[in-house]
Amino acid sequence: MEIVFIGSGSLATHLALALKEKGVTVKQVFSRTKSNAAKLAEKLDCSYTTDLSEIYDKADIYFYALKDSAFHKTLKSFDLPDAIHVHTGGSIPMSEFDGIARKYGVFYPLQTFSKEKEVDFSQIPICIEAVDSETQRILFDLANLLNSKTFLISSEQRKKLHLAAVFACNFSNYMYDISSLILEDIGVGFEILHPLILETALKVQSVTPFKAQTGPAVRFDDKIIKNHLNMLKNRRDLKKIYKLISKDIHKRHKKI
Amino acid sequence: MEIVFIGSGSLATHLALALKEKGVTVKQVFSRTKSNAAKLAEKLDCSYTTDLSEIYDKADIYFYALKDSAFHKTLKSFDLPDAIHVHTGGSIPMSEFDGIARKYGVFYPLQTFSKEKEVDFSQIPICIEAVDSETQRILFDLANLLNSKTFLISSEQRKKLHLAAVFACNFSNYMYDISSLILEDIGVGFEILHPLILETALKVQSVTPFKAQTGPAVRFDDKIIKNHLNMLKNRRDLKKIYKLISKDIHKRHKKI
Repeated sequence: MEIVFIGSGSLATHLALALKEKGVTVKQVFSRTKSNAAKLAEKLDCSYTTDLSEIYDKADIYFYALKDSAFHKTLKSFDLPDAIHVHTGGSIPMSEFDGIARKYGVFYPLQTFSKEKEVDFSQIPICIEAVDSETQRILFDLANLLNSKTFLISSEQRKKLHLAAVFACNFSNYMYDISSLILEDIGVGFEILHPLILETALKVQSVTPFKAQTGPAVRFDDKIIKNHLNMLKNRRDLKKIYKLISKDIHKRHKKI
Repeated sequence: MEIVFIGSGSLATHLALALKEKGVTVKQVFSRTKSNAAKLAEKLDCSYTTDLSEIYDKADIYFYALKDSAFHKTLKSFDLPDAIHVHTGGSIPMSEFDGIARKYGVFYPLQTFSKEKEVDFSQIPICIEAVDSETQRILFDLANLLNSKTFLISSEQRKKLHLAAVFACNFSNYMYDISSLILEDIGVGFEILHPLILETALKVQSVTPFKAQTGPAVRFDDKIIKNHLNMLKNRRDLKKIYKLISKDIHKRHKKI
């Protein structure tokens, strides 16, 4: 099985390296950014190109790991209808491949990747969708090769899953960021919050976030909430966020 | 050294047990709720009372682990001016002890506690404040006995630290909760997000949340944001939260 990677970002890097380690042949890397393409190709011990017309045309699978906007541009100038085409994005419907190829699917690892940090694919859920059962089987085989947990997720489900991931990852990270801003004000290093942040994330591995919810907003402790809003009086944006989330937490917990 | 615990909630339970394990004598537990008091006293192999007038009056330290409102009520009907009085709350200033005792302080473990889950105090930062250096030394000694990391934090700093903790813990947990609501809609179990949530929390143990920030809001990917808002059109509250946080993330990352 020969694979070409379209893209050389964090996801492409980790996924390509993990597949290669399991014996899959990564034949070539394509990226518009030469330095990134070269770097990943070196790690994979394969060739690379920055020119779409030079893409190796005999691969079995073309893996797209690109930003959404780049994905559309690349796809249009690509003409290999006999191979399997697979994208890795949370918010791109599988139907984007309609008319481009006969065999296609989605292989979406639900995780946040950084280039520097090692990745253990056995801990990552892979969301799979495919146009036919043979392609589906191939994608499941690849995920199983990585010892990943696999989920059959439709395009319709995947776009909501991606929305859920924005809350669970991007927005929770922004809550950490706000807390780091508040700590700057009092000259205390962010590391004082490390254990609390980790424990908050560990808790919901075994109980629901609804059950894990604590804090002044659940019981709508008026006095503490007022004090907190008062401390945020010079930070209008943060005050708005504090108010809105507190109100919402309270509403959710009063309801039941 | 003899200690009395005022309160029998999660924090009181874990802290009292951890201290006992290190050889400290917990003499008595006071709680308004008889069943809780009895349960904790049994674990500690000590006596308990639900009557303030029956509190053991020869202890060296009285540890208050109560909700803020209960703290004030209890404090007023308490007359042991010669012992050390210590509260464990994030948002109560130390000065609340003024006129109640001569020796007092704060011992605030910055962590979220659940009764069922074991606690490793060596991983918990303890924020200490004391009215004099001798009391401060005693509180540092207790924290060191637990192998905790210690921080000298003033009441002024502590109230902002508590605010930061609300964002880092309570509000990030609410982001998880929202994501669980979205998953319910598509019939996918919350465990699909476990690895993502854990990795998001692990990331900020080594890089700042500012550097770790990813997602459509950072680059203000209009198309994805519009799609997400559209999916939330029947959930006005969530839509408001999504919009406000996305706008704020974008502003923060554009600035620099």
